[in-house]
Amino acid sequence: MSKFINERFRLLEEYVPGEQPQDKQYIKLNTNESPYPPSKNVIKAVTKQGIEDLRLYCDPECKQLKTAMAKLFGVNGDNIFLSNGSDDILNFAFMAYGQKGAAYPDITYGFYSVFAELHGVESEVIPLKDDFTIDTDEYKAKDKLIVIANPNAPTGISLSLDKIEEILKSNPESVVLIDEAYVDFGGESCYPLTRKYDNLLCVGTFSKSRSLAGGRLGFAIANERLIADLEKIKFSTNPYNINRLTQSIGTATIKDNDYYLENCQKIIKTREWVTKELENLGFFVLPSKANFIFAKSDKISGLKLYEELKEKGVLIRHFEKDRIKDFNRITIGTDKEMKTLVEKIKEIL
Amino acid sequence: MSKFINERFRLLEEYVPGEQPQDKQYIKLNTNESPYPPSKNVIKAVTKQGIEDLRLYCDPECKQLKTAMAKLFGVNGDNIFLSNGSDDILNFAFMAYGQKGAAYPDITYGFYSVFAELHGVESEVIPLKDDFTIDTDEYKAKDKLIVIANPNAPTGISLSLDKIEEILKSNPESVVLIDEAYVDFGGESCYPLTRKYDNLLCVGTFSKSRSLAGGRLGFAIANERLIADLEKIKFSTNPYNINRLTQSIGTATIKDNDYYLENCQKIIKTREWVTKELENLGFFVLPSKANFIFAKSDKISGLKLYEELKEKGVLIRHFEKDRIKDFNRITIGTDKEMKTLVEKIKEIL
Repeated sequence: MSKFINERFRLLEEYVPGEQPQDKQYIKLNTNESPYPPSKNVIKAVTKQGIEDLRLYCDPECKQLKTAMAKLFGVNGDNIFLSNGSDDILNFAFMAYGQKGAAYPDITYGFYSVFAELHGVESEVIPLKDDFTIDTDEYKAKDKLIVIANPNAPTGISLSLDKIEEILKSNPESVVLIDEAYVDFGGESCYPLTRKYDNLLCVGTFSKSRSLAGGRLGFAIANERLIADLEKIKFSTNPYNINRLTQSIGTATIKDNDYYLENCQKIIKTREWVTKELENLGFFVLPSKANFIFAKSDKISGLKLYEELKEKGVLIRHFEKDRIKDFNRITIGTDKEMKTLVEKIKEIL
Repeated sequence: MSKFINERFRLLEEYVPGEQPQDKQYIKLNTNESPYPPSKNVIKAVTKQGIEDLRLYCDPECKQLKTAMAKLFGVNGDNIFLSNGSDDILNFAFMAYGQKGAAYPDITYGFYSVFAELHGVESEVIPLKDDFTIDTDEYKAKDKLIVIANPNAPTGISLSLDKIEEILKSNPESVVLIDEAYVDFGGESCYPLTRKYDNLLCVGTFSKSRSLAGGRLGFAIANERLIADLEKIKFSTNPYNINRLTQSIGTATIKDNDYYLENCQKIIKTREWVTKELENLGFFVLPSKANFIFAKSDKISGLKLYEELKEKGVLIRHFEKDRIKDFNRITIGTDKEMKTLVEKIKEIL
């Protein structure tokens, strides 16, 4: 750091993304990417002309993509916000709505506390229950920004819509952000509730179920006034932040929605299979509705399992946080990858 | 806007990008894009495998691209920061270094005042001299963030490095940001001075001279401590903000540097030609070192010329700000496009 930086960032600890080691080829089960490539129409959406047109700015309003998404979700274009990945949208939300503070679980996506720190938002960190579920009563009448990942990460546990609705009803003067990065793997999206609740910000991403982690595309669905807030922040920071090719690719993705739904079904099936396998090996696995599982074993520490699997060419995600350090988060890959994982674990145990 | 938004954004006026009308095909001379496409190796850099790999996150550290750029500029990798366009970097700089206020010219890139407003940075707006040049004495011993576009926009007038060095020397306790979006069209880059001055932040972009406005890639060159500040902010907002394809394309761009230098020479030649043509028609044209010219005529108002050219299928940029409302900013296109422009202006006059 330099001597010039604003004092308030001096103690800021940035987010640490999952490792991307370049030393050898790993089976990568550590950053919740899809094991399946983008659809055929996505490949076709990138043309020579499209690349040549990169000399021109992209449409800052993303009209074509917004129209396709509005049709898919049955909402209006002004109910949709698009930005450079859902992290970008979470950042804007902490900036725009954090002035009365923010409440989120102790065990959740690690970036929430970074955004809070960055924007000087006071955080109320609410512990998950002993079974790692969210105690929704604890989020009632908070009158501050509420941020809940549903399904939650890294637990994978999902929350029902009636519980979310209770939180929405009891916080009419503050925004409730539901981060649905993993919703397509068995959870239930709250976006239909945005018609009824003007304080609901439903955030999604193309990174997981839509196989575009490296394409950078996130979205939010909400009442048009919330969307207008986010557009204002985007047009005051970086209006062109979605690449031209990503806009074309995103539109092709939406049109091939069925392909991605099928992939989700495959991932769910693999998840159920690998969960049973690990349970047979004595693992405790939380009930996941995401494209990962969160698992621990009495026979080996979380850190040791992570290290030994890495040694054997399989990357999973370990967190050193006290309450969850016995666990590891394991992304669901292809059947073949998960069979290798199970074999390697057997070797280690 | 919603009732939920932080009060301090209520009066914020977002940046208004140049228009991108979809109603018909225009000769687009309004957003300073390059008329020349990306190089052949850029086209080749986008492969089927590369698109399939979009399922994976991009390298948040952009190692490959950084290495290529470090080689080109003769600096170390830790002297280079990469982000989603130079707007993104300007935004981070106002956030990180604006705590003592910021000083910039009255006539300059319109986004500076938006960033200042967004981050609550007090602005000292310093008028250009009557001839639209920057009075560098006015920026001495300011002890606040200094932001100067060199060449300046929309004037196109460039500043010499010795003048910049005087500003750097007299502000040792604050960051001096030189925005070099247009430097490759005849200006002189200050990046070699970053070895000598730890307060110099030299910001560049791939959007103009490198034909990648829609690819979203900006960079900064500076002392490694300033770069570390910017990395901290990026990793606290959106670490993956540069698309996978853009990272490959950016690397191919750097390797084809000569092609882009040739394009710059073509654009300079066209600029000199069209400047003379307009002067022959009675226009007053500021001396430009950018890929645009800023011109006015006593025979027609700035607004009227803009409107009539639009009617005839040629888009240029008009600003309604009092001091410059007689002028228009005209991007340098191909020779053919500029010949059409001159013909249409003749018809109008």
